[in-house]
Amino acid sequence: MSSLSVTPPERLKTPLTVPQRHMFGPGPSNVPPRILEAGAKPVIGHMHPEIFEIMSDIKSGIQYMFQTQNNMTLAVSGTGHTAMECAIFNAVEPGDSVLTAVNGIWGERAAEMAERIGAKVNRIVAPPGGFFTTSEIEQALSTYRPVLFFLAHGESSTGVLHPLDDIGHLCHRYNCLLLVDSVASIGGAPVYMDKQGIDILYTGSQKVLNAPPGTAPISFSERACQKIFKRKSKPVSFFLDLSWLANYWGCDGKPTRIYHHTGPVTAFYSLRESLSVLAEEGLENSWERHQNVAEYFHNGLEKMGLKLFVKEKSARLPTVTTIVAPRGYNWKEITTYIMKTHNLEISGGLGPSVGLVLRVGLMGCNSSRANVDMVLAALKDALRHCHKSKV
Amino acid sequence: MSSLSVTPPERLKTPLTVPQRHMFGPGPSNVPPRILEAGAKPVIGHMHPEIFEIMSDIKSGIQYMFQTQNNMTLAVSGTGHTAMECAIFNAVEPGDSVLTAVNGIWGERAAEMAERIGAKVNRIVAPPGGFFTTSEIEQALSTYRPVLFFLAHGESSTGVLHPLDDIGHLCHRYNCLLLVDSVASIGGAPVYMDKQGIDILYTGSQKVLNAPPGTAPISFSERACQKIFKRKSKPVSFFLDLSWLANYWGCDGKPTRIYHHTGPVTAFYSLRESLSVLAEEGLENSWERHQNVAEYFHNGLEKMGLKLFVKEKSARLPTVTTIVAPRGYNWKEITTYIMKTHNLEISGGLGPSVGLVLRVGLMGCNSSRANVDMVLAALKDALRHCHKSKV
Repeated sequence: MSSLSVTPPERLKTPLTVPQRHMFGPGPSNVPPRILEAGAKPVIGHMHPEIFEIMSDIKSGIQYMFQTQNNMTLAVSGTGHTAMECAIFNAVEPGDSVLTAVNGIWGERAAEMAERIGAKVNRIVAPPGGFFTTSEIEQALSTYRPVLFFLAHGESSTGVLHPLDDIGHLCHRYNCLLLVDSVASIGGAPVYMDKQGIDILYTGSQKVLNAPPGTAPISFSERACQKIFKRKSKPVSFFLDLSWLANYWGCDGKPTRIYHHTGPVTAFYSLRESLSVLAEEGLENSWERHQNVAEYFHNGLEKMGLKLFVKEKSARLPTVTTIVAPRGYNWKEITTYIMKTHNLEISGGLGPSVGLVLRVGLMGCNSSRANVDMVLAALKDALRHCHKSKV
Repeated sequence: MSSLSVTPPERLKTPLTVPQRHMFGPGPSNVPPRILEAGAKPVIGHMHPEIFEIMSDIKSGIQYMFQTQNNMTLAVSGTGHTAMECAIFNAVEPGDSVLTAVNGIWGERAAEMAERIGAKVNRIVAPPGGFFTTSEIEQALSTYRPVLFFLAHGESSTGVLHPLDDIGHLCHRYNCLLLVDSVASIGGAPVYMDKQGIDILYTGSQKVLNAPPGTAPISFSERACQKIFKRKSKPVSFFLDLSWLANYWGCDGKPTRIYHHTGPVTAFYSLRESLSVLAEEGLENSWERHQNVAEYFHNGLEKMGLKLFVKEKSARLPTVTTIVAPRGYNWKEITTYIMKTHNLEISGGLGPSVGLVLRVGLMGCNSSRANVDMVLAALKDALRHCHKSKV
């Protein structure tokens, strides 16, 4: 007689089926067959010489994508949020002063993470769709004297591309590290980590890179490493402790690597493949393509009578476009209609932009004029078919 | 002229190649084509209704594998170490007393994690290859009055399968939660989470389940949830905060799910597929197969004149076998020879067992008599060819 009190679930008897759809929301984006196939190669050990070679390739690819010579460059075994915690857990000690720029959801999340580990957190806040001037940032740096300043380069909840020039060097004058979230922007808009004086930069695999979600590139400047390796207390997380990660990724110059955790080897394969694709196209070509496609899209939207949420042209994220939620419509009805009728994901707002915007992401291989035409047609169709109240 | 100071890396121009090898170390194990193919299906959104269905399937599969009715059952977006931190970060508050059973590497790692978040940690220590009697555990519970007791069911560094009966109920008499690591054992040896009074149980995807590393099943009893949801302080990690994870996995009874993080959707596909495979075979059949294959293997080793590291038969892990490092040989020469000549991974010790043992993992689809024969042949060959000192 069976000793089991829980029987095999019926639902697992149905074979897995997954629909193919156009992933034009703010991420994850579509993954081309080449990258999916890379991730389906056989599993090898997380400490085999071949995986260390693949990790070296990934490191070079990230250095290229980030435009950095930082030796401390690697991919975290997790999503963008894991990288965000990796940055904050390592760079911040309890009692440290941290400043975050909140003009959407990401600055608020960074603030919450820093608060959870006992930092004193101050925020500068701009309305959704807005951003910060250098002098506003300088004033806050001078007032709060933070050890770390968080800024989202691509604020995917509001569609803002934040200017980066000068901010790194400004932070350094105040003896502060600059931490930049480039999850939604990297590969689609110019970032020069070294030249711009960014101390910690991270992103995710599932946006412009078009790899499945599950790995998160990150890099630390020499200045960041100096603070991190002089910490008085250990970071709260063993899993994200940079001294362990540095050893696993061969960034600490030690001759042997010690078992830390089991790296997601197949996710590393697809990450490597996605970095190869980016290197083949060339970073500047990719930036230019995203910019051109975004402008083509924005013109098309305006011709339809729709309004862009971000007023200033140069502050529009070329990867994720925010459209002012059309008046008189229920935004949810629009996104649902488009998913149902066109098998195409676009999304509503997130955090402070909920109800205010529609968001369309065209990232990596998805960034093309043909896809813009598809989205514009779907939007036109939705505006015809969805219920409009007589406001 | 290019504005880039870092050029595209040459090494990314070489196509990705991955060798196919027999993964008979302590993990990751081989992933069958069926599971690799599941993970190569198209990416959908981390908040699409179809992924919520897949996550429900996974939840049922984990409940079956763990033999639990716990509603709070889900998969963490990370590796076994992430699940370990998820358990400790949520169940432990600063100042809490924690007890860990150290008879290999895992109890020590759990202790380190709990120390990092400010717990008062005590350890009971057994020599590598040993384990704890119920009365030793009771004495420590009575002395240290911990809120949480950590025990590795399958101690993969030493090859010990720890007895579980009574320990859960014993812990409850001392008002203590029982946290069990079953990364190396689940699916390969009997575990009855509910019946055995285990409060938190976790595992990884890459052992008996034969999925790629990158997801980690975890479950919390009602008793564990009561402590967790009455916390005074927030857990240090936003990413691993159970109240957020519970919402994402539909375990909190709320009608809507709020964006927490981008789940690794393709890793969820392969995890679901691996749970289907286990459900098809049946848990008891899988336990029996692993046990039979392990006994067949152990007999074969003893016939060769090799010694098993774990003396007590009933305490031998059926998934990972530890062999006393053959006298007069350099263990590293043996594992290197076998990898080179037989394309087969077996490994040396880990942590306290380094230099003492060879470790062979035969997990999930790898657990078969044919594979045992292959390993025995490789070992015989290695002992003939490797250098033996005249001690």
